[in-house]
Amino acid sequence: MELDDLIKQTSGWLKGTGPHSEIVISSRVRLARNIEKMIFSNWATDPQLEEALTIIEPAVKEIEEIKNGGLLLRIKDASNIDKQLMVERHLISRELISKKEGRAVAISSDETISIMINEEDHLRIQVLLPGFALEECWKNIESIDNRLEKKLNIAFSAKLGYLTACPTNTGTGMRASVMLHLPALVLTKQINRVVQAIIKLGLTVRGLFGEGTEATGNFFQISNQVSLGRSEHEIIDNIKRILNQVMEYEQNARKVLITKDKNNLEDQVWRAYGILKNAHIISSAETIELLSDVRLGFDLGLIKGLAREIINELFILTQPAHLQKLEAKTLTAHKRDVKRAQLIRERIK
Amino acid sequence: MELDDLIKQTSGWLKGTGPHSEIVISSRVRLARNIEKMIFSNWATDPQLEEALTIIEPAVKEIEEIKNGGLLLRIKDASNIDKQLMVERHLISRELISKKEGRAVAISSDETISIMINEEDHLRIQVLLPGFALEECWKNIESIDNRLEKKLNIAFSAKLGYLTACPTNTGTGMRASVMLHLPALVLTKQINRVVQAIIKLGLTVRGLFGEGTEATGNFFQISNQVSLGRSEHEIIDNIKRILNQVMEYEQNARKVLITKDKNNLEDQVWRAYGILKNAHIISSAETIELLSDVRLGFDLGLIKGLAREIINELFILTQPAHLQKLEAKTLTAHKRDVKRAQLIRERIK
Repeated sequence: MELDDLIKQTSGWLKGTGPHSEIVISSRVRLARNIEKMIFSNWATDPQLEEALTIIEPAVKEIEEIKNGGLLLRIKDASNIDKQLMVERHLISRELISKKEGRAVAISSDETISIMINEEDHLRIQVLLPGFALEECWKNIESIDNRLEKKLNIAFSAKLGYLTACPTNTGTGMRASVMLHLPALVLTKQINRVVQAIIKLGLTVRGLFGEGTEATGNFFQISNQVSLGRSEHEIIDNIKRILNQVMEYEQNARKVLITKDKNNLEDQVWRAYGILKNAHIISSAETIELLSDVRLGFDLGLIKGLAREIINELFILTQPAHLQKLEAKTLTAHKRDVKRAQLIRERIK
Repeated sequence: MELDDLIKQTSGWLKGTGPHSEIVISSRVRLARNIEKMIFSNWATDPQLEEALTIIEPAVKEIEEIKNGGLLLRIKDASNIDKQLMVERHLISRELISKKEGRAVAISSDETISIMINEEDHLRIQVLLPGFALEECWKNIESIDNRLEKKLNIAFSAKLGYLTACPTNTGTGMRASVMLHLPALVLTKQINRVVQAIIKLGLTVRGLFGEGTEATGNFFQISNQVSLGRSEHEIIDNIKRILNQVMEYEQNARKVLITKDKNNLEDQVWRAYGILKNAHIISSAETIELLSDVRLGFDLGLIKGLAREIINELFILTQPAHLQKLEAKTLTAHKRDVKRAQLIRERIK
């Protein structure tokens, strides 16, 4: 796979399939790992980063899912648009592209696996799948982790577990998260209460692009706060238990909306559809809000004849770097708004 | 014609045809006339109103355009919805339906002629035609006026001209007006300057429903202020001269928009179209604003495949009494908003 191929395909985790995909967009597990006796990436000099790369890259390349059609590339070799594109596809973090030297990433051909090298930790392994599939994410990532540990000396303390650059990751080095679409809880104004409850139960709630981003388009990323003192299975089970409840709340709220407020709901989702289908200038923020409404309309059976995959894909394709990649040139904000509207009109025809 | 037939047809003046119909919706001339030595309607007792009706009705009935397929009815015999319906179709004034006894109206089958009896004056004759057609309005109304004067003793002073209940109408008793659609002057923020200039030149500017109504949907009704001391031809020529200039300003503003701001313009008119085509709840006010945008898009060739007659008709059909007449029952405001959205979706399919 080449970097240019990314834009031509739908990310594996965006298929709109998978368990509970009417609420759960995707599930993700990531592991933080470091090489024994090597300085953490953020404190390393350029030669030290290079040294880490030389050790890690060959091991990563040997991973079956990377070797077979995946790609491994140095961040400094990617254009600004390509870097931003990978962030928009949730393959790498903003942090990875904030520095030039000694960073790399490996991506599997279906984009469900990505391995960042020299982000905050020497290794950040991610498995991202569609729907509510934390167990499967764990199964896949555990297998990758085992294969890497056979080739690399991973820093591990019998007392603390995996050692990481930031102590909040120490222990399992794991963060498990799910991206949820909770429009009915937002519309019925129950969302704040639900978010507060989730936080009290020890989980973290974030926006569409993780740490430091706001919840736009009624998307909420929910993940474990603590990675120390609990097993990976306990962490995943805890999230699953809480998530099952959140999904039940959202389902109930959807039922209430459709029985008690159907006219308003239909009006909102169809107006969103009508605007998306006809606008000639549209911002990224408005696009996300309207797509969120259309997705709700689709999931409630109010809007038919439109695949969820198309809606999900538009969330990604309408982002700045994707638009510029499609046009193969940099575009001003205004031109992006025009191009975005055009793309949406073509896709939801 | 029966009252119930009105809803089944497009008013003659709404055809969307006629000269300059891309800017001028309709032209209207009305004459105020009173019967000699009879007390003005607003000061008359019920028996006096009845007496006036007995004198006027036979003369009105004999007018060819009323006799052949038109209708003449007493206001007290009409339901509330039917009265409101006639107001919405610009056939009668709100003032006429504000009182119960002794009022009547005659309407020609194509709705271009209406004659109110015992409104503010004993007779209010109106001719309403599509497009910029003041001369034709005058020709038609002069003919009706002549025929009525042969049968009725009309109050006329050699010094003052026609005598009327309100001195502002004395003289010719004429008001000539045109309904203009000036969206480009509004969008380019030139409208206030143009309106001020029109007022300085001695004309009056009003909203969609005449006296006391605001300009919604970028519609402006422009009429003569003075009816005394000038001949009917002078009044009409004066309006025509000023209107020709206003039309030129609007045309220029449209050209500027389409050359310098096409993206924004397309966005605005297509969004309006998209909302109208998809909304499930819509207010009367929002409907007028959006239809105004769609009409502009049609007139500028941006929106195709939609007849101007359909757009024009929706302005009328989406009004409260029309919706209730179509449903054959009274509807709450919310139900009207739902029904209105449904009607629009069906019509602009």
